[in-house]
Amino acid sequence: MAAPRVLVVAGTHGNERNAPWLIQQWRQRPELLQRHGLEVELEIGNPAAVAAQRRYIERDLNRTFVPELLADPSQQGVEVQRARQLLERFGPGGPAACQVALDLHSTTASMGNSLVVYGRRPADLALAAALQHRLGLPIYLHEGDTSQVGYLVEQWPCGLVIEVGPVAQGLVTAAICRQSQLALEAALASLAEARSGQLRLPAALVVHRHCGSIDGPRDGNGDPLAMLHPSLQGRDWQPLGAAAPIFCLADGGNLRLGDLLADRAAGPGESQWPVFINEAAYGEKGIAFSLTERQRLACDPAWSQALANLLA
Amino acid sequence: MAAPRVLVVAGTHGNERNAPWLIQQWRQRPELLQRHGLEVELEIGNPAAVAAQRRYIERDLNRTFVPELLADPSQQGVEVQRARQLLERFGPGGPAACQVALDLHSTTASMGNSLVVYGRRPADLALAAALQHRLGLPIYLHEGDTSQVGYLVEQWPCGLVIEVGPVAQGLVTAAICRQSQLALEAALASLAEARSGQLRLPAALVVHRHCGSIDGPRDGNGDPLAMLHPSLQGRDWQPLGAAAPIFCLADGGNLRLGDLLADRAAGPGESQWPVFINEAAYGEKGIAFSLTERQRLACDPAWSQALANLLA
Repeated sequence: MAAPRVLVVAGTHGNERNAPWLIQQWRQRPELLQRHGLEVELEIGNPAAVAAQRRYIERDLNRTFVPELLADPSQQGVEVQRARQLLERFGPGGPAACQVALDLHSTTASMGNSLVVYGRRPADLALAAALQHRLGLPIYLHEGDTSQVGYLVEQWPCGLVIEVGPVAQGLVTAAICRQSQLALEAALASLAEARSGQLRLPAALVVHRHCGSIDGPRDGNGDPLAMLHPSLQGRDWQPLGAAAPIFCLADGGNLRLGDLLADRAAGPGESQWPVFINEAAYGEKGIAFSLTERQRLACDPAWSQALANLLA
Repeated sequence: MAAPRVLVVAGTHGNERNAPWLIQQWRQRPELLQRHGLEVELEIGNPAAVAAQRRYIERDLNRTFVPELLADPSQQGVEVQRARQLLERFGPGGPAACQVALDLHSTTASMGNSLVVYGRRPADLALAAALQHRLGLPIYLHEGDTSQVGYLVEQWPCGLVIEVGPVAQGLVTAAICRQSQLALEAALASLAEARSGQLRLPAALVVHRHCGSIDGPRDGNGDPLAMLHPSLQGRDWQPLGAAAPIFCLADGGNLRLGDLLADRAAGPGESQWPVFINEAAYGEKGIAFSLTERQRLACDPAWSQALANLLA
């Protein structure tokens, strides 16, 4: 039985420098990374963007893994070509096919050490539950948002994002590197357990399910007309009531959460948990932060089984 | 007697967003900025870079104010043209000539609310001393570094940089905006006092004089071979002894300050105060941080007189 193969990607966004630095270290000194008996492929996601110290060259690589886009021969941009290359080599059927993809990101938001899971594939939920059990990591469950699609890890049979912050774009700091490495090693340890049938899941998994994204008011040129309220800065994963001030307007007034959600289904009495508050790269996407609802999902033995089958 | 004219520049670096946001607010609601009876010109330094959300388009505007460069008609880049435009309009002899330039910057380093002064022009030292007296701001005295020249404020009769951090590139936060506004208003208040002969300076000014910049080791491609040691991150303005660990090498070893300064004149027993530790934009300049020595300068009545003469 060959060891499971895990693709570890860093620098999917070229201005997130911590994970590329870790990869450089691990290549020089492989013993620094506890691999737990797995075959690990270390790969820079977007080398052109890393070299340019920019998030991307032509389009966000982590929104490019859209099958129709990649199948369109008229699309020949830097990121489209790189996505095809990664899939051809490391995707199912490729010469270096991997069963699992772990994509290491950092953010200017105060997300701490956290996970992003896309949808509810059983193997992903098993891995996320095991990681939350080991390290207590909060989990952002991204689903049902048709405006944000094409994430890298979705194209592998199992995959999730390790997201650590806050750290400025372009910076390497020891604290962010240490957290990224911890989460990655815990993921590899959990995969090794799953392979040997030893994975024990907790009774339940707590997720923060994506409900939508919020932007501040903008003028006709798209320039912001408001600043994030100081009481919200750095308060990722903390619940907000309808009266919470969210934006400071130039005229001195505040916009409250209830004002912003007035036309939404969520009742004003419900708490909402914000994530990715003031992520610098999301300004261009019109996202000041996203709102989630906290859910407790009972862990299903079928999740571990799905992961074990994948790694067998 | 016409009121003195002060040029306030924001967005000299296009990815430093806090000061441009303040300018947008002040233009909408002029009463938000206490002008202390002065004529204040609010100007975006590098509008093309602000629009592109990049530090600069072709070259760092705040290293472009080099008279020989600006006088060379073969130089027609974005930043060179913009520097000429600013000088022609707001420089000495221009239709909107200003006596003082205040350039608002932010940094990913933990500089707090601070000032940068270039050289020892008496009027600059008077303004810096008054600001330190009012708000206790630390002062980085930049002089004698031939590798870093061409700063904007040097081309006005009096000028300094207000530098606030830490904040990620591309982000607006209320705390950074508030500190920037506080420092600017204190500067305008001090200029108004100087104009009316009321400026009182403290007995002495404490400056951190630039001694040089330190970079970590790099490989043949210019890629870093070390990470800033965690004990140094965020410790701007705090003294370092020769034994302080500065960089973590990929092989697990540390480089200490004494190792890095072995070939310098400074003796190993002297303390050195680091500034601009892990400023994201300085990677490309080969600067991990700069070292300063702390000096106490007795305030000279001639400084206030120079400033008063300029504003008369």
